[in-house]
Amino acid sequence: MIRSHLSRNRVQKGIVMMDIINLELIKEIARPSPTKIVLLVIDGLGGLPNPATGETELETANTPNLDKLAAKGICGLINPVSPGITPGSAPGHLALFGYNPLSFKIGRGVLEAIGIDFDLQPEDVAARGNFCTMDEAGLITDRRAGRISTEKCTELCYLLDGLAIENVKIFVCPVREHRFIAVFRGEGLASDISDSDPQQLGVAPSVITPLRPEASRMAGIANQFIAQTKTILAEHYPTNMVLLRGFSKQPHFPTMSEIYKLKPAAIASYPMYRGLAKLVGMEILGTGTAIEDEFVALKQNYASYDFFFLHIKGTDSAGEDGDFDRKVRVIEQVDNALSELMSLEPDVIVVTGDHSTPALLKGHSWHPVPILLYSKWCRPDKVSEFSESACILGGLGRFPAMQIMPLVMANALKLNKFGA
Amino acid sequence: MIRSHLSRNRVQKGIVMMDIINLELIKEIARPSPTKIVLLVIDGLGGLPNPATGETELETANTPNLDKLAAKGICGLINPVSPGITPGSAPGHLALFGYNPLSFKIGRGVLEAIGIDFDLQPEDVAARGNFCTMDEAGLITDRRAGRISTEKCTELCYLLDGLAIENVKIFVCPVREHRFIAVFRGEGLASDISDSDPQQLGVAPSVITPLRPEASRMAGIANQFIAQTKTILAEHYPTNMVLLRGFSKQPHFPTMSEIYKLKPAAIASYPMYRGLAKLVGMEILGTGTAIEDEFVALKQNYASYDFFFLHIKGTDSAGEDGDFDRKVRVIEQVDNALSELMSLEPDVIVVTGDHSTPALLKGHSWHPVPILLYSKWCRPDKVSEFSESACILGGLGRFPAMQIMPLVMANALKLNKFGA
Repeated sequence: MIRSHLSRNRVQKGIVMMDIINLELIKEIARPSPTKIVLLVIDGLGGLPNPATGETELETANTPNLDKLAAKGICGLINPVSPGITPGSAPGHLALFGYNPLSFKIGRGVLEAIGIDFDLQPEDVAARGNFCTMDEAGLITDRRAGRISTEKCTELCYLLDGLAIENVKIFVCPVREHRFIAVFRGEGLASDISDSDPQQLGVAPSVITPLRPEASRMAGIANQFIAQTKTILAEHYPTNMVLLRGFSKQPHFPTMSEIYKLKPAAIASYPMYRGLAKLVGMEILGTGTAIEDEFVALKQNYASYDFFFLHIKGTDSAGEDGDFDRKVRVIEQVDNALSELMSLEPDVIVVTGDHSTPALLKGHSWHPVPILLYSKWCRPDKVSEFSESACILGGLGRFPAMQIMPLVMANALKLNKFGA
Repeated sequence: MIRSHLSRNRVQKGIVMMDIINLELIKEIARPSPTKIVLLVIDGLGGLPNPATGETELETANTPNLDKLAAKGICGLINPVSPGITPGSAPGHLALFGYNPLSFKIGRGVLEAIGIDFDLQPEDVAARGNFCTMDEAGLITDRRAGRISTEKCTELCYLLDGLAIENVKIFVCPVREHRFIAVFRGEGLASDISDSDPQQLGVAPSVITPLRPEASRMAGIANQFIAQTKTILAEHYPTNMVLLRGFSKQPHFPTMSEIYKLKPAAIASYPMYRGLAKLVGMEILGTGTAIEDEFVALKQNYASYDFFFLHIKGTDSAGEDGDFDRKVRVIEQVDNALSELMSLEPDVIVVTGDHSTPALLKGHSWHPVPILLYSKWCRPDKVSEFSESACILGGLGRFPAMQIMPLVMANALKLNKFGA
């Protein structure tokens, strides 16, 4: 049962039930078949028009291959979560894999651990940490300790890493600037404990409390860990304290093999996306960091799987940096590499993004994302250009990203009829 | 309360509750009025483009009347269940009548009985049956007994029909090839019993067990029936056993009169669709089998009802046969008959399908279905051609089929305002 996989700690029972039913339905009608699917995710694909030209990054890019595929396929726009919601990478990708991100949640600690490729074990409890500054009265004066450098953070993590409390080993690893992760490894730890990070200034760090009785040991260990770090950091003003939040264990999601009866593989050069793919049961394939490397990895492994998630990071990074032109160039590189993919003749190709990252906004945004679906059975529309504007008139219309997978499965002729 | 109508035997409480709330809302605001509605269902209407021309069946057909109506009305595309899901006839039609097919389910036995026009009584328990072949060890070697002919099936059913076990009379009627139905009629029978059909080869038929204590008598009778059929069929190798599944009673759905305060009637030449209409409380009108006959039946009964479901089967049959041209011709016949319907001047006309049946796929498919809604109050769009491509740009957009009925009711001015 998919039900048993879901964390107990939630209020959204109505939505969660619906999502379980949807996945159970797909599970019931999914059938294995020799057809192959490629899901090409151009991270942060959607954009906003450059005021000078009136064209978005995708519209500015010269993309003959994508346009050709759009003409043969069917296009539309997806809402990663729902209109107006700007998703992080995790909800954005979960939706693409068919998991409603409002139901299938990943704890902050686990997400940070995944993001740095930390080899999380099933029973580990991970927390997101901040190095911070306290005054003499023990009140927080800076939640980021003046946003210390990553080098400084690495140095401080080294001091804290490897502590052991009541047979629980604690790993402390730097993330970036003042951010780190603390991972608690031991027998029978529960992650349901409160944060020490009050997320405001002028107050003392909170004492961690168990959110259910079974978690009292974990709360005690976390409080002891904080006390010890306080002692160790005493001489490192302005970095004299840590704040922990988002204690969590790796969630147990139903895998894509269980739901879709697929043999799925992921090709991604960034750890975060490999980690997300692993959470839904994909095999992680080795790849170099260049776009071309990823397409080579696809080609090399093409015979062994029937679903490929291929992740392009450069578009999102360029968007986050506010670098419109670089985002255009990355899109053109992807378009160029597309012929490599086309030569494999997959039965279903989907090109889309996990969210928009307009260079103008220098960050993720809520704007719907262009999607292109090609299969022999896709009922083509009149869209002959892959762009935000053209996709408005596409035959797929506008729909939630979590409905992509059923559509993809249908186009791959991997779904039986529902009902007689 | 609509709630009380739903069967207890279900897990999908989340969705079911939402669907009940939706129907309760409509029930609360529905009001009777003299306006008349015609829902013309062209079964399997949606198609895929002929590779030679790039046009679907509907796009190929010459449909001046439908196009004229599209120009006066508002168009769009419906998802019968949800994107990617290929519905059977039952879920497809329930959605058109406003019942979410994921919540309102019909047992397989009942559906088969409906399909052959068996006069099911409220307390009857119906099962779908297969004639099959067992080897000497009692293991199933062919679930379809070599797919025997309908004639042979009819002959064998005659041998089994009319048995009586513990005051329960058992009807056995042929369906097609190796398929038949067994209907158990007696006092206080419960249908919650397991299948005898293991749906795999190399194993023995399963012993039927009760799924709740009240069903133990029914399980016993079903097992006795199977034992007796085994004896009777002993000399009929390769057909020497039966497999039963989908034991079910007629579900008690809230009727369309209860929900919509309509007086609804169905005109359908195939038993399955008459049966589905009966389940939601429609009156079944007599009709010949030709398309023209159905429109004549509409005209003759026009004064007596305010909602008409008119079902055209030929499009689906042609699609299933992979006969593109025949599907085109059936659509043209419907278009031709449409003037008959127009002359009645219904207040609301809806033309759509229960799903797509592209001739290219020779079966039902997941593709969205064109819909055309005409009423004096429909806010016309710019679509002037009834086709898959044109409907993409229609004013109704893309929406779930189960939302058609509220829209139809509104256009017939049969819904009060919701809230003050």
